[in-house]
Amino acid sequence: MRHYCYINGHIMPAQQGKIAINDIGLLRGYALFDYCRTYQGKPFMREKYLQRFERSATLLGIPFPFSIAQLADQMSQLHRLTGIRDIAFRLVLTGGYTYDGVTPSETPNLLIITEDIPYIAPEKFTKGIHIITDEYQRELPEVKSTNYTRLIMLRHKIAQAGAVDVLFHKDGYLSELSRSNIFLFHGDLLVTPNCNILKGITRHVTIELARQIFKVEERPVQLDELWQASEVFTTGTTKRIMPITQIDGKVIVEGRPGPRTLKLLKLFEEFTSCCED
Amino acid sequence: MRHYCYINGHIMPAQQGKIAINDIGLLRGYALFDYCRTYQGKPFMREKYLQRFERSATLLGIPFPFSIAQLADQMSQLHRLTGIRDIAFRLVLTGGYTYDGVTPSETPNLLIITEDIPYIAPEKFTKGIHIITDEYQRELPEVKSTNYTRLIMLRHKIAQAGAVDVLFHKDGYLSELSRSNIFLFHGDLLVTPNCNILKGITRHVTIELARQIFKVEERPVQLDELWQASEVFTTGTTKRIMPITQIDGKVIVEGRPGPRTLKLLKLFEEFTSCCED
Repeated sequence: MRHYCYINGHIMPAQQGKIAINDIGLLRGYALFDYCRTYQGKPFMREKYLQRFERSATLLGIPFPFSIAQLADQMSQLHRLTGIRDIAFRLVLTGGYTYDGVTPSETPNLLIITEDIPYIAPEKFTKGIHIITDEYQRELPEVKSTNYTRLIMLRHKIAQAGAVDVLFHKDGYLSELSRSNIFLFHGDLLVTPNCNILKGITRHVTIELARQIFKVEERPVQLDELWQASEVFTTGTTKRIMPITQIDGKVIVEGRPGPRTLKLLKLFEEFTSCCED
Repeated sequence: MRHYCYINGHIMPAQQGKIAINDIGLLRGYALFDYCRTYQGKPFMREKYLQRFERSATLLGIPFPFSIAQLADQMSQLHRLTGIRDIAFRLVLTGGYTYDGVTPSETPNLLIITEDIPYIAPEKFTKGIHIITDEYQRELPEVKSTNYTRLIMLRHKIAQAGAVDVLFHKDGYLSELSRSNIFLFHGDLLVTPNCNILKGITRHVTIELARQIFKVEERPVQLDELWQASEVFTTGTTKRIMPITQIDGKVIVEGRPGPRTLKLLKLFEEFTSCCED
């Protein structure tokens, strides 16, 4: 009973949350989501996450009859009910109930679910993570859609490689990991792809923090740049700033998190330790 | 209360059917389906549909702990409950309930839902339908996955063009319509794409029937062949054999269903009028 959900105006314990089987997100994959969290008991960059949620809806053509403030209020209410200091929020918006199995409704279905923030072992940050690469481009990269079939089908290959995630590339250019963005240091130059990606909120914060001490380029990044990079890391709501030390079995630099990445992680930790809504 | 559903062993009126919100089909699009129907009150090619359903599950990596006979029995039971002579069945299989929002369960969720067979106005068969084309390739064409975002996003464009469906092509080759297969007559030669498609059961029956009187080629079909074709039609569980008389605003031949297409439709109607399970 720790976690709660909001479904189209009704609040209940999360494990009691159900949706009718003619939801078009279930039947036809016509749905999007967003995912944010708290630090120090306070929402982190909530406005930006909710703005992205609305933008995904606009791009996918799903009505968005809510204000950001209304959604924020609902999230705060759910947060209070949990009694947990720091939690994550999963917001899901589907095209509503379909009467014929394929036509979306004019009334979308909105779900807000509270969840535990996934635990990440501290050594992931001190030793870095291993990933694999895969040639793939998401259909609507700027939309946080619910289509994660590629990742789910790759999960055994990822595990067999001793890795924890996958970095997508297409036609020789990097895009993003399955649920996080990619950054490379070439010396003191920080580069990150700027197209065919979902623009992460943590990516945005990282760029802002990095500009204080490094040169930052948002531009197309070639796959081959991976192998020349001084340091590689990924950014995401859960992973924060996570060093990558092995890719497709190849050790990156010396297999240890680089000093610039660790500097950014420190800046990010400072930033989140005093976060305001 | 006319229609019923089966959800993981429980049967209830379809409008009471619900699924918990941590279903990975809803949250991550990890799901597939199939759709079949009855003629003369009897299941049409049910074994073939259920074999395809199982094949989709195997290709997507979703466990399939059912026998075809068990599924057929459940469908018959639902059919009896409806008291309706001819109905359609929607079978949905998802990767089950996820504990962490991204990992599928070892126990899938199975839904079987009875539905009315969509009404198609008789003049669709006598005048043919209008369609548009779109450059797109489904991610896993041999899997009847639930990802229909492309079609749903195109629905306004389709309607504005006075059309009813979309024909996908990629790199100069035709694949399929959004929910049905494509056939072209070049004189007495019938051609249909054989790769990057979902192999329809109606497509299969059509090819078998056509071989009695025409030469049939299953092969890559170029987009340009559309404009040279003597006749064009589509096949599907709902559409059966449906003449196409306008594509992207261009009238196909004389804008009327061709004699060979109508001959095949007649053969198909005879075939379904005496169908056995």
